[in-house]
Amino acid sequence: MTASSQLNKAPAGQAGGRPVVPSRGALRPLGLAEVRLTGGFWHRRQQTNGTATIEHCRDWMDRLGWTGRPAPAPGTRRGLEFSDSEVYKLLEAMAWEAGRTRDPGQDWAARIGGLAGVLAAAQDGDGYLGTAFGGPGQPARYSDLAFGHELYCAGHLLQAAVARARTHGLDELVEVARRVADHVCAAFGPDGNPGVCGHPEIEPALVEFARLTGEQRYLDQAALFVERRGHRTLPEHPLGWSYFSDDIPPRTARVLRGHAVRALYLACGVVDTAVETGDTELLEAVRAQFDRTLARRTYLTGGMGSHHEGESFGEDFVLPADRAYSETCAGVASVMLAWRLLLATGDTRYGDVIERALYNIVATSVADDGRAFFYANTLHQRVPAEPAAPDRARLRFGGGMRAPWFEVSCCLPNAARLLASLGGYLATADGEGVQIHQYAGMDVRTRLDDGRPAGVRVSTGYPDDGTVVVRITESGPGPWTIALRVPSWATGAVLADAGGRRPVPPGPAVVRRAFAVGEELRLELPLQPRWTFPDERIDAVRGCAAVQRGPVVLCAESTDQDGGELDELRVDVSAPPEPAPGGAIVRGSFRPPADEAFPYTPAEPAPRQAPAVPVRLVPYHRWARRGPSTMRVWLPRT
Amino acid sequence: MTASSQLNKAPAGQAGGRPVVPSRGALRPLGLAEVRLTGGFWHRRQQTNGTATIEHCRDWMDRLGWTGRPAPAPGTRRGLEFSDSEVYKLLEAMAWEAGRTRDPGQDWAARIGGLAGVLAAAQDGDGYLGTAFGGPGQPARYSDLAFGHELYCAGHLLQAAVARARTHGLDELVEVARRVADHVCAAFGPDGNPGVCGHPEIEPALVEFARLTGEQRYLDQAALFVERRGHRTLPEHPLGWSYFSDDIPPRTARVLRGHAVRALYLACGVVDTAVETGDTELLEAVRAQFDRTLARRTYLTGGMGSHHEGESFGEDFVLPADRAYSETCAGVASVMLAWRLLLATGDTRYGDVIERALYNIVATSVADDGRAFFYANTLHQRVPAEPAAPDRARLRFGGGMRAPWFEVSCCLPNAARLLASLGGYLATADGEGVQIHQYAGMDVRTRLDDGRPAGVRVSTGYPDDGTVVVRITESGPGPWTIALRVPSWATGAVLADAGGRRPVPPGPAVVRRAFAVGEELRLELPLQPRWTFPDERIDAVRGCAAVQRGPVVLCAESTDQDGGELDELRVDVSAPPEPAPGGAIVRGSFRPPADEAFPYTPAEPAPRQAPAVPVRLVPYHRWARRGPSTMRVWLPRT
Repeated sequence: MTASSQLNKAPAGQAGGRPVVPSRGALRPLGLAEVRLTGGFWHRRQQTNGTATIEHCRDWMDRLGWTGRPAPAPGTRRGLEFSDSEVYKLLEAMAWEAGRTRDPGQDWAARIGGLAGVLAAAQDGDGYLGTAFGGPGQPARYSDLAFGHELYCAGHLLQAAVARARTHGLDELVEVARRVADHVCAAFGPDGNPGVCGHPEIEPALVEFARLTGEQRYLDQAALFVERRGHRTLPEHPLGWSYFSDDIPPRTARVLRGHAVRALYLACGVVDTAVETGDTELLEAVRAQFDRTLARRTYLTGGMGSHHEGESFGEDFVLPADRAYSETCAGVASVMLAWRLLLATGDTRYGDVIERALYNIVATSVADDGRAFFYANTLHQRVPAEPAAPDRARLRFGGGMRAPWFEVSCCLPNAARLLASLGGYLATADGEGVQIHQYAGMDVRTRLDDGRPAGVRVSTGYPDDGTVVVRITESGPGPWTIALRVPSWATGAVLADAGGRRPVPPGPAVVRRAFAVGEELRLELPLQPRWTFPDERIDAVRGCAAVQRGPVVLCAESTDQDGGELDELRVDVSAPPEPAPGGAIVRGSFRPPADEAFPYTPAEPAPRQAPAVPVRLVPYHRWARRGPSTMRVWLPRT
Repeated sequence: MTASSQLNKAPAGQAGGRPVVPSRGALRPLGLAEVRLTGGFWHRRQQTNGTATIEHCRDWMDRLGWTGRPAPAPGTRRGLEFSDSEVYKLLEAMAWEAGRTRDPGQDWAARIGGLAGVLAAAQDGDGYLGTAFGGPGQPARYSDLAFGHELYCAGHLLQAAVARARTHGLDELVEVARRVADHVCAAFGPDGNPGVCGHPEIEPALVEFARLTGEQRYLDQAALFVERRGHRTLPEHPLGWSYFSDDIPPRTARVLRGHAVRALYLACGVVDTAVETGDTELLEAVRAQFDRTLARRTYLTGGMGSHHEGESFGEDFVLPADRAYSETCAGVASVMLAWRLLLATGDTRYGDVIERALYNIVATSVADDGRAFFYANTLHQRVPAEPAAPDRARLRFGGGMRAPWFEVSCCLPNAARLLASLGGYLATADGEGVQIHQYAGMDVRTRLDDGRPAGVRVSTGYPDDGTVVVRITESGPGPWTIALRVPSWATGAVLADAGGRRPVPPGPAVVRRAFAVGEELRLELPLQPRWTFPDERIDAVRGCAAVQRGPVVLCAESTDQDGGELDELRVDVSAPPEPAPGGAIVRGSFRPPADEAFPYTPAEPAPRQAPAVPVRLVPYHRWARRGPSTMRVWLPRT
C-alpha cells in the first residue's frame, strides 16, 4: 500500500470522486469532476436515475421498513437477511449523485446524513452493524457465513462510504464505515474467525477502503479473505462449493463459475488485491479466468449466468437464450471487473466488454421512467409476460417483466450506483495523454502527469449515429496523446483530422502530437447492421443468427411482427440486414406449425413453405417497453 | 362408486394384486398372479429390485432415522418434512414384492408388520399420522400446506396399504391407513379445512382406497380435492401457482405445467376421479393435457421436466438436452398416468409412452446392482461427473451421477414400488380377450369375462431382439382375441402364425379366433437402428439427430470414443446407422475446437475439417456404468 491517506485531502479531490483508485496500473481513472456527460443516451439515463430511480428505491425501502425510518419496533425487522445492503447501495448511489450534480436544491447532505444517523444509532459498540443477526431472538453474529450476508453487507457499506468520502469528505457515514472496517479486521483477522462470506463483496470493499484511508490493515484483511477463498470452508452447497467460488482458490481457478454475481465480485476483489500487493501472478490468473469466461460463458449481450438454478454460470458454451439469467447485477459486476482490468492492463478489449454490458444489460434492465427493472435479462421470451403488480414486490425473477420491485431487489440500486458514477468509467489518462473508452456527449478535462492541462469535448449521437467528434478544449504546450477505442466490431472505422482520413483497425486509435484548442478528431464507426453467428459449440443457438448494430444487439419483438409468431420465424442470412430507423430489417418467413404429435420422427421434417416477408428488428434494450410481448435475439435460419 | 368392498374378499384376489383397479374402463388390468415375468430385461431388474434395492433403501432409512427403528429420542426427528413418504413407498414396494414372490423365506409379513407397528404406535388418536408437524416444538398440523407434504405423505401411506391389502389382506398397515383416510376426510371434508396439499398424491390414493374399500366417502374427498385445485388457494410460489398445478383448474387446463411430478400425480388422481364419477369431460381434459404434454414438453426418452429450477416443465418445446431434469419420479409418474389412460381409453399409444419411459428413464436411473440411482436423467453430460460418496446422501440432484442416496431420495423407492409391481402394467383383458402391451419373457393367465381361461407364454429377447413369440398355454372353447401392441416406431412389423405372415402397422395387431394350446403367434419388430429428427420448434436440439433402436434411445458416450471429445463430434446422417452389438455405429468426425475468443463473429465459422470415423453408440440406459464419462443423445450434424 503506497498511497497516502486520502481522507485528509480536499473533500472530493481534483478528480471529483472515482469508484476505483488503484495505486498502480496502466491507466489512471478519471473522476466525476473530470468527465461530465453532457447529452445523449447515457446522459438521459443518468438524469432519470438521479431524478427518479434513487427516489423510487428510497420509497420502496422506506415502505418495506429497510431504511429504519421510521424505526421498526423491536423484533419486527423485515426483509431478507441482506436487505441492509440495498440501503447501502442506495447510499452509494446518492453519494455519487450528490458528487456528480452538486445540486444544493437536492439537499443530499441531509438525505445521506439522515440515513447515516440511523446507521450510527444501530451500530454496536465494537463496530458491528447489521439488523439480521446478533439481536434479541436473532441468530448469533456470523453463525451463517454461507447465507447470512453479514460481510457482504459490510462491504456495501464501505463502498457507500468510499463514494461519500471521495465526493464530499469525512462525515458520519464514513466514520460508521471506518468502525465497521475495524470490526471486520478484528473479527476476521489472523487471530479471529477463519471464515469467508458466502457472498463476496467485502474483498473489493476493503481494498478500496484501504485506498481511501491509506490503512494497510484493510488491504491485509482483503488479501487474507482472498487467500482463504477456495478451500471449501463454507458448508457444502447443493450445487457444489463452486456456488460460492469456494471450490478452487482464485490463484489456480481457470474460469468463473457458480453464482455469477458472487464470482464477479470476488474477481474484482482479487484484481484489487493483486494490484495493490503487486501480485502479478494473481492478477494474470483472474485476467485469464475472465477472458475464458468471455470466450465460453458469456451471452452475446455480455450477460453472464446461464442457469436460473443457483443464478449461476453454466459449463463452457452452455448459453441457452431462453434461460439466460443474465442478472442485471452480473452485468454491473462485469463492468466493475472489466474496468479494473482495463486500468491494470490498458487492454482496450475490456472497453468493449464494458460497452457491451452497458448497452445490452444495464440499458435493457431499467425502465424508461427509471421506476421498474428486469432482474434477469432473457434473450428469448416465448410467452408474453404477465404484467407486474405496481404495489407488490415480485417473487419471480425471470419471466420477461420489468417490475417496480422484487422480493430480492439488488439490481436497481446496483444499476443506480453505476449510473450515478458512470462518468468515472468512460475515460482514463496515462503518462502520455488521455484515452476515451466510451462514446457519449461529454466534457473531459484533466491534467497530464506532468501537470499540463488536457481537455476534449466529445459530441456524438452514438449509438444511433457512428460519428464521434472529439474537439480539443484544453491543451498545454508540446505533444500529447489522444487514444480512441475502436470497438472490436468496428471493421472499417475511419479516423479523420486535419491531416486527412485513415482507416483504423479495432483497438486503440492513437493520435500523438501537439493539439490546438478547437482542433477536431473525427472517428467514424460503421453502424451498418450486421449478421452475427455463434460458435458452433454453443448447442443452444445452433442454426441461428443474430443481428447487431454497433454495440447494440437487436431482437425481433412480436409487437412489430403483425401477428407472426416469433417461434415460427426463419430468417434468410444470405443478404445483409438493411438499416432501418432504430434497428434493421431482415428477410424471413413465418412458417405454420406442424401437427400435434410426438415431436421426434424418423424422417426429417420437410421444409414448410411460407412467403418471405420483411422482419423488423429493434434494439434489444428497447424490448418489452410497449406492453407484454414475445422476443428473440437468436433467429433460426431457413 | 359401484365396486363392492374388496377388503372382505380372498386375501389377494384372483388377480394377485393390481396397483390400479378402475370400476369401469376400456380395459381390465391384470394383476401379479396373472402376469409373471419369467426372464429377460425386466425380470433381471425385478430380481435386483427385490434382492438389493428394497434392502438398500431400508438400510439407508434406518441409518437416517426415518423408519423409527430404533425409535428416535423426542425432538430429534431427522429428514426433510416428507421423509415419512419414503418409508411408505418402501412399504408399498415391500408389499408388492411380497405379493409377487410369496417367498416365505423372506418373512415379508414380519418386516412389513414391524414397520406398521411403528406407524400404529405413532398414530394420533384421531388418525393423524406424521412425524414433522403437530409434535412438541413442531409447527402445527397443516400449518404449511404448500410445503409441509402432510397429505402427500398420507397418500403414499394409503398406496402402501392398498398394495398390502390386495396382495395379502387386512393387517395392521391397512388399519392404520384406514384411520388416516378417515382423518383426512374429517379434516378436509366439506366442513373442514378448505385447502389442498402443495404436492398432489392424496388424490389418486384416496380414489384407490375407495376402490379397495368400496367406501364412497374416500372418492368424494378425492373429488373435492380435485375440484379445489387450480384456484390459487396455496400461497404464491416464486415460480407461480403453476408450480403446484394450482393456477388453473384441472378441468380447464390445456397442458401439464409446473413441478413435473406434482402435475403428473395430480393428473393420475384426476383420471381416477373422472373414471369413478363417470365424468367424461374431466377425463377428456386430462387426456388432452397429457397428449399435448407428450407433443410439446417431453424428451425423446419420455423424460419430463426441462428445468432444474422448480423441477418443472418448461414452456412448449423447451427441451434442453443438457438441462433435462427428467426426474426418475416423473418417469414413474408418467407410467402411472399412461397406464390409467390406457385402461380408460384402450388407446395403445399409451403403451408406447409406458415402454419409452420404462426403457429410457426407469432402466436408466437404477444402477446394475440396484444400490444407486439417478435422480435427474440428463440427455447431455458435458463434463464427467464427480463420483458420489458411498456413505453420504448427495445434495446435488443433477450432475450425471448415480448415487446411493440423495438428500431427497424419493426416486429409488418410487422405482422400487414400480418394479415390484411391474407385472401389473404389462397386459390387460377386456370382453373379447387379452392385450399384451409390453414385451418380456412372461406368463399371462387370466379368465375372460365369460369365465373361459386364457393363457399365453411370451418368449422374447426384447429389446435386444425383435422377435416376440406368444404361445397359447390355456384356451377355452370358441374364439377370443389376442391383441399385440405394435409400437409407433415399428414400421415394417410382421405378424406370423399358422395362417401365414402379414405386415402389421403400428397400433394393436389383433388376432381373433379359436386358439389351440401350443399354437404360436410370432411378432417380428424391426430393430434396425434408425435416425430420429426433432421437431424444428425445439430450439435446444436444432441441427441435431439421435439414434434409436426399437424402444431404446442410444447415445454416444466418451468411454467408447477413443479420446474424441463428444462436444466436437459432428455426425453424417446421410447413411443409416449400422447395427452393432448392443447399439449402433454411425459416421462422424471430431472437429478440433476453434480458437479462444468472444464466441460471436460476423462471418460464419468455416466448417472445420476432420476425418470421418466410425462412432459407436450404446443404449442410453447403459451410460455412466463404466466410470465417469461425457455423453450425448442428440448429435450435431455435419
